[in-house]
Amino acid sequence: MTMTPSKLAMVPFVSVDNMMKLVHSIGLEQFLRDLATEIEADFLRWELFDKTPRVGSHSAVGVIELMPTSDGELYGFKYVNGHPKNMKEGLQTVTAFGLLADVYSGYPVLLSEMTMLTALRTAATSAVATKHLAAKGADTMAMIGNGAQSEFQCLAQKAVNGITNIRLYDIDMAATKKCAANLAGHGLNVTMCTTPEEAIEGAQVITTATADKDMATILTDNMVGAGVHINAIGGDCPGKTELHRDIVSRSTVFVEYPPQTRIEGEIQQMDPDHPVVEL
Amino acid sequence: MTMTPSKLAMVPFVSVDNMMKLVHSIGLEQFLRDLATEIEADFLRWELFDKTPRVGSHSAVGVIELMPTSDGELYGFKYVNGHPKNMKEGLQTVTAFGLLADVYSGYPVLLSEMTMLTALRTAATSAVATKHLAAKGADTMAMIGNGAQSEFQCLAQKAVNGITNIRLYDIDMAATKKCAANLAGHGLNVTMCTTPEEAIEGAQVITTATADKDMATILTDNMVGAGVHINAIGGDCPGKTELHRDIVSRSTVFVEYPPQTRIEGEIQQMDPDHPVVEL
Repeated sequence: MTMTPSKLAMVPFVSVDNMMKLVHSIGLEQFLRDLATEIEADFLRWELFDKTPRVGSHSAVGVIELMPTSDGELYGFKYVNGHPKNMKEGLQTVTAFGLLADVYSGYPVLLSEMTMLTALRTAATSAVATKHLAAKGADTMAMIGNGAQSEFQCLAQKAVNGITNIRLYDIDMAATKKCAANLAGHGLNVTMCTTPEEAIEGAQVITTATADKDMATILTDNMVGAGVHINAIGGDCPGKTELHRDIVSRSTVFVEYPPQTRIEGEIQQMDPDHPVVEL
Repeated sequence: MTMTPSKLAMVPFVSVDNMMKLVHSIGLEQFLRDLATEIEADFLRWELFDKTPRVGSHSAVGVIELMPTSDGELYGFKYVNGHPKNMKEGLQTVTAFGLLADVYSGYPVLLSEMTMLTALRTAATSAVATKHLAAKGADTMAMIGNGAQSEFQCLAQKAVNGITNIRLYDIDMAATKKCAANLAGHGLNVTMCTTPEEAIEGAQVITTATADKDMATILTDNMVGAGVHINAIGGDCPGKTELHRDIVSRSTVFVEYPPQTRIEGEIQQMDPDHPVVEL
């Protein structure tokens, strides 16, 4: 049997290193703005996408997920894990990579790290949602949960929406201090807070990005005033929420993809027919 | 923000080239025997695996699938496409790669080409099924469908079960000739046949590995005698079968994973409660 690899067996790979170089050469804030523009464009052709709930493999300590989609011309999937306990062991909570393939031939055309891309895409999506849903002129954001993702959230809000006042809170003050230090020099006015109540004072936007896998209540009902926009991005698997259900009850809820969000997102604690608006 | 890749960001990759070198250095038949032994061992701890039906993205010309599983310690998935029209365009019908990850950390530990591995694993699995289910002393196999996979099927049957008489048939005689040429020098007694009836003459084992995506009937009921073992491996997506339902009706049917096989396999043409034996 003759067995020699063809040239089509060679698939370009974007390493973490190269992705960092790409982001640095474009500039992080410009990259986030460009990404937000792409995300908006994709939402405008949302119905073209072949969507399916992500396929999770859960263990006692975390989850590994595959997220496939296709627009009929290109197929892509992402591999991503979520292991909250990793950080204590010197590992990342989330790592990811992904593949782009040609629907017509089924051949892979690009393999890329997606740990960086996941961080950037998550942040840019919050910024797009905030742009369309938050009060006009919002300039202050409370950032609850100060892990690695929170830095991207703050920079994306500045880059896309001009939000420059950031109020940080985390149950671990060391995380808050690290986040504040990493945000220094980015033109943000950062306040470190010791309670969530203090953090949300005067904030028109609240973003929650906590990682603990339990039905936690980061924000209770009486904390949040009317007209505040909340990006609740930490509720990303069954059994994990961040908002008290009374907040969800009196809010207009916008989600990307109900079949997935009703199982994994903030609305898993609501009735299966709780009204939502698809983005 | 500091952004430098850690050493854990480096994942070893087994290229097509290296996989070929590995197979050649072990020897193809020995590799198939070792693989069959591993597959048997995995079936013996079958209940440990976290199984889920593969996730397919179908287009008019083919399918792209993700196949995740986990045994609680290691997580793996395979990306694989199936595009029957590819061969006419000088491309492979099937290409694949896969990843192994550590369930405890969620970190990838190995990335590998799986086009070769898919071909080898499919063949070794047929050989394991044949070993346990076919008549003792079977030495003759009809190979219906003579694409690339058929060569591996024949070699695996020889390596694992000592089947040395191969009777080839394909609707395209060029495919039959190519297969026969590639099998030369492997110690097989190969007969090229011009009809399926001729091919199955005297065969205790029939293996069908055809690629056309339609509810085709490669084998009709009156062609197949009692006691013959059939590996029907080509029916791998909705709308694709190879056997007349009357053959399936009077056979004892063994499948790996009913939730998937009832949708994609040979038994999709049967009642949803058609009795099957799980391997």
